[in-house]
Amino acid sequence: MHPFDQALELEPSGDDRWRGRTIPEWANMVGPFGGITAATLVRAVELHPQRHGQPIALTVNYLAPIVDGEFDILTRCVKTNRSNQHWIVELSQDGEAKTTATAVFGLRRQGWSETEITPPAAPAPEDIVPSVPPFGVVWFDNYDMRFVDGAMPDTAGEPTESASSTTTLWVRNKPSRAMDFAALASVSDIFYPRVFLRHGQFVPAGTVSITVYFHADEEQLAAQGDDFVLGTARAHRYSGGYFDQSAQLFGRSGVLLATSHQFVYFKA
Amino acid sequence: MHPFDQALELEPSGDDRWRGRTIPEWANMVGPFGGITAATLVRAVELHPQRHGQPIALTVNYLAPIVDGEFDILTRCVKTNRSNQHWIVELSQDGEAKTTATAVFGLRRQGWSETEITPPAAPAPEDIVPSVPPFGVVWFDNYDMRFVDGAMPDTAGEPTESASSTTTLWVRNKPSRAMDFAALASVSDIFYPRVFLRHGQFVPAGTVSITVYFHADEEQLAAQGDDFVLGTARAHRYSGGYFDQSAQLFGRSGVLLATSHQFVYFKA
Repeated sequence: MHPFDQALELEPSGDDRWRGRTIPEWANMVGPFGGITAATLVRAVELHPQRHGQPIALTVNYLAPIVDGEFDILTRCVKTNRSNQHWIVELSQDGEAKTTATAVFGLRRQGWSETEITPPAAPAPEDIVPSVPPFGVVWFDNYDMRFVDGAMPDTAGEPTESASSTTTLWVRNKPSRAMDFAALASVSDIFYPRVFLRHGQFVPAGTVSITVYFHADEEQLAAQGDDFVLGTARAHRYSGGYFDQSAQLFGRSGVLLATSHQFVYFKA
Repeated sequence: MHPFDQALELEPSGDDRWRGRTIPEWANMVGPFGGITAATLVRAVELHPQRHGQPIALTVNYLAPIVDGEFDILTRCVKTNRSNQHWIVELSQDGEAKTTATAVFGLRRQGWSETEITPPAAPAPEDIVPSVPPFGVVWFDNYDMRFVDGAMPDTAGEPTESASSTTTLWVRNKPSRAMDFAALASVSDIFYPRVFLRHGQFVPAGTVSITVYFHADEEQLAAQGDDFVLGTARAHRYSGGYFDQSAQLFGRSGVLLATSHQFVYFKA
């Protein structure tokens, strides 16, 4: 089984309840990669018999590190409307809350559509050498990342500060895997903390809250298949020990699949 | 009492519970203005005896219209860490859920700070004629809005489409009132749906989820006082009956007070 799907394996454990477990392949510095946790919460709602439609919007809050082992997810449907549905989701371990989320699911309707932004200029992913992460974070191996701009700082020499916080990269699951809403949630969190890029070095940092808006419908995800996604992210302000970063994820044809935003704690 | 503070009047009604009521001054087309609801949820957490620090990040989901009358708010503290705290908040009427939210509160720490964006060019608010809203939405009267760009479409003649979705305006409470976190949450939702601007006319539209990142600390809010805020907002993509819009709110000195993002349902 693909490591992405393996991480999302959940068994029902009572009304509105699901049981899952961390797998070593997705380990981050502390606990699992935040993107895989977000994807797991999406999957939990997708599995629920009352689920109505597809993911529209998701906010995930990281309360405390998930430790290696089993976890419980509570998916509570708060309201079902004709065209959409609202969920509150909580992930806990031994009764201690670790992650909370709200999710909007819904039906998409045909109608006027337009995209106001264009993807950043980038050579084809085939023309870029795959990145070798500069330090041993296990989950990186689950993605083929090809940086166009703003690669992870090289910590071998003196820190090289950057005036820009922008990272642009091609990315896809490794081994490749068809895109779906859960995978899109995960890749929305692919961008390492922008403060690393600005400072040219690693500092303590961790996402406190991430929001994903799913622009693509099922047809557009099917067209995406297992191809690379072009992602770009930047920050706006660092202050009081927090900064924001906003990201856009495009298909190779230029279709905007998702936008995401996060607020990150840091110490520098 | 100022109409903003009047709308935020809450009485405790049991452990973690608060009772409030709509007031006619904040009426929108259907139910109250979403910004005043967001502000009320911030206030409910602020009133809670366990509250630790100030607002850091807020996501509010609009499930169903709030009807005129009383409402109940449940503020549940899910986790308190050393430097931050996570809340789940639910607003209901007669036991029916109307709004859900997650909020991160926390302490801010001194450290490296920088802003990567600059406010849009704009004449001083004193040099712009206050806007007269083109239709009778009551809550508009609680804000002094002075549009720099992308004013509300004039529905008197033929619709004039716009290639841009950007609105930039100076805005402050009317009557003026000192800025605080609740007021900042409310003004983050000041931007009418971008699809109105693109189409040059009103179409059915409503926010499903809004996220606010509070960049300012208490000192910066105190410096803001009751002065105008310069806000700018734009969309990225309209598809499947939803679009996103992102906003930035600056003080007159150029300080970035907040960024916000929302996903909006529309029919066009």
